[in-house]
Amino acid sequence: METEKMQAVVYEGPFNIVVKEKSKPVLLEKTDAILKVHIAGICGSDLHMYRGHQKTTTGHTMGHEFIGTVESTGSAVSRFHPGQKVMSIFSPMCMKCWFCQHGHTNRCVDGPSFGSMALDGGQSEYVRVPFADSTLEFIPEEVSDENMIIMCDIFPTGYYGAMKAITKLLRNNETAESIVGGTLHAPSALRPTFEKVTLDNSVVVCLGCGPVGLCAVLTAKVLGAGTVFAIDSVDDRLEEARKMGARPLNLEKDDIPDIIKSVTGGRGADAVVESVGNKSAMRLAFDLVRPCGVLSSIGFHQGDLPFSAFEAYSKNLDINMGRAAVRPVFGEALKVFAENQAMFADFITHRIPLADAAHGYEIFEKHQARKVILTM
Amino acid sequence: METEKMQAVVYEGPFNIVVKEKSKPVLLEKTDAILKVHIAGICGSDLHMYRGHQKTTTGHTMGHEFIGTVESTGSAVSRFHPGQKVMSIFSPMCMKCWFCQHGHTNRCVDGPSFGSMALDGGQSEYVRVPFADSTLEFIPEEVSDENMIIMCDIFPTGYYGAMKAITKLLRNNETAESIVGGTLHAPSALRPTFEKVTLDNSVVVCLGCGPVGLCAVLTAKVLGAGTVFAIDSVDDRLEEARKMGARPLNLEKDDIPDIIKSVTGGRGADAVVESVGNKSAMRLAFDLVRPCGVLSSIGFHQGDLPFSAFEAYSKNLDINMGRAAVRPVFGEALKVFAENQAMFADFITHRIPLADAAHGYEIFEKHQARKVILTM
Repeated sequence: METEKMQAVVYEGPFNIVVKEKSKPVLLEKTDAILKVHIAGICGSDLHMYRGHQKTTTGHTMGHEFIGTVESTGSAVSRFHPGQKVMSIFSPMCMKCWFCQHGHTNRCVDGPSFGSMALDGGQSEYVRVPFADSTLEFIPEEVSDENMIIMCDIFPTGYYGAMKAITKLLRNNETAESIVGGTLHAPSALRPTFEKVTLDNSVVVCLGCGPVGLCAVLTAKVLGAGTVFAIDSVDDRLEEARKMGARPLNLEKDDIPDIIKSVTGGRGADAVVESVGNKSAMRLAFDLVRPCGVLSSIGFHQGDLPFSAFEAYSKNLDINMGRAAVRPVFGEALKVFAENQAMFADFITHRIPLADAAHGYEIFEKHQARKVILTM
Repeated sequence: METEKMQAVVYEGPFNIVVKEKSKPVLLEKTDAILKVHIAGICGSDLHMYRGHQKTTTGHTMGHEFIGTVESTGSAVSRFHPGQKVMSIFSPMCMKCWFCQHGHTNRCVDGPSFGSMALDGGQSEYVRVPFADSTLEFIPEEVSDENMIIMCDIFPTGYYGAMKAITKLLRNNETAESIVGGTLHAPSALRPTFEKVTLDNSVVVCLGCGPVGLCAVLTAKVLGAGTVFAIDSVDDRLEEARKMGARPLNLEKDDIPDIIKSVTGGRGADAVVESVGNKSAMRLAFDLVRPCGVLSSIGFHQGDLPFSAFEAYSKNLDINMGRAAVRPVFGEALKVFAENQAMFADFITHRIPLADAAHGYEIFEKHQARKVILTM
């Protein structure tokens, strides 16, 4: 039997994206599904590879954001059957390893990212989806297929980054009393009452207003952060952030540290959500957060940390880094997204045929497009 | 009027501690108190300066652990009056700045550390205590003066480090549901149930078993951590940790990463409390913590961080660094300490007259003494 062929977007090196013929994927495991892809997104994190910042081999199919129809399923797939329209979370998760079982699906021991040297992605006519029951999701009636592309990665990732920042900020108010409890030997004067940082009076900075950063901005506002600053150098992105309720700050025009200090009595922001993924952004994030504040970093960082241990000690830094655990927050994130879809009406700016994918990468990399989707 | 004189332990440079005559301190602010010191401790953090690792000028009086009697008070001091026996927390806190009011007394904007170039310490016959009402505490009946030295810094600091690790570990189980709440648009399959890391089955590593590290070990056990590993290279310290319920691991004899992996299914520890304050300790702490685990660092770090942004991203690191906020946990820490004083029966190994302070520093630096106190 002759192998069936398909068109796929292949990474051949930095700034070298080629659409070429590949073998159509087949079921390899009982938990696999094969999707016929309808639309696939180009994600900001694809640019790390495109620009050559991310060390990788070449030859794999790009893309970790895609909507399609189930074409076939392995014998162990129970939630989905051929003909159903679905979306995929950006990396497969087995739901059986210790990390998946404990909600850390971002660190699934068997879950490589789509569109990497470990697993062909979805910018192609067909894609193989490992662990289909947990990696795929249905598309709710109230969300369009195009908008659901935003739920594959960028919205849950931005949601996770802002949610972590805000929950940690509120929890840092508390002491260990809930653990120890009981009666103290010490006089009551030893237990002073402290004021708490409330959401209403909190100042949250979202550093980076690419697609993920804008999702973080929206999340911070929806979760109730009092003042949200949005930082970028692209005016069009800052305008979107402003519509979402943030105060836009332009990296190239505004004295950002001075502005943040002036609205926080010189302290700095209570929390910073960093979604850029380079050293200068991380350094600015560090400089903007106040002592004992929270730095929630979801940008993909390749190099060194741009602050010293002494600086982190001296600031009592509390930082979390790494990619989002999408599965445990998916339901919550989808609820927030579905209720605020109007904010994303103009989010997808370019719809490009798969054959012209190289052009799509080019304009996205040059910030000439907010969000590009490839159509089959 | 002639200035009164006193003896004080003065820092004259690395490995150069001199006991000399200084002017007796006087009240400078309405919120000050002057103490006549009875005993003062030499703390592990004094060694950063003693060894020359910490950049500082010379000439100041050392020491941030001391017990004494109130000799005089400024007009704004209301909790204390002359003749009362008191202890001091290791750094003054104003309780009026934003940080103090929000429980971050470790970052008081007016609170320099005792025994630094900013404020003379308590290894002397008399000491001036700023913000006496909040910096000083009474000594409960059930705790001896000698043991109360342990509450000036090392126990609350170890307590804070372990408490942060454990509370963050438990909180990382949770998602944002408590914030968003409400009914989901998405089907219930989108809300899977995850297992939680419980205290009972948690693995906590305490890296460093100096005085602060041992206090972290005890705290981790008392707060309920299932398995606590204690790491050091000094056998005597490891034996103390074993008595507190920890599993001792010797840095020079045991294959520590292998052992931690073998008891955690290859994952690594759920939380690591780092109390050493150098690069190799921080690197080991990073290597031992599992992905999505918690690194709680209370060691005083002077240099760079020994892991990259890429490594931290790839591990989904959650780290807090910096000195302890003692005031908000003081009551809880004192309760745990008072109930477990028996564990500290042999903690203070050397009692040395103030005049022989240089000898005290020498034997403490060489790990020939677990804890040295100076007597007046």
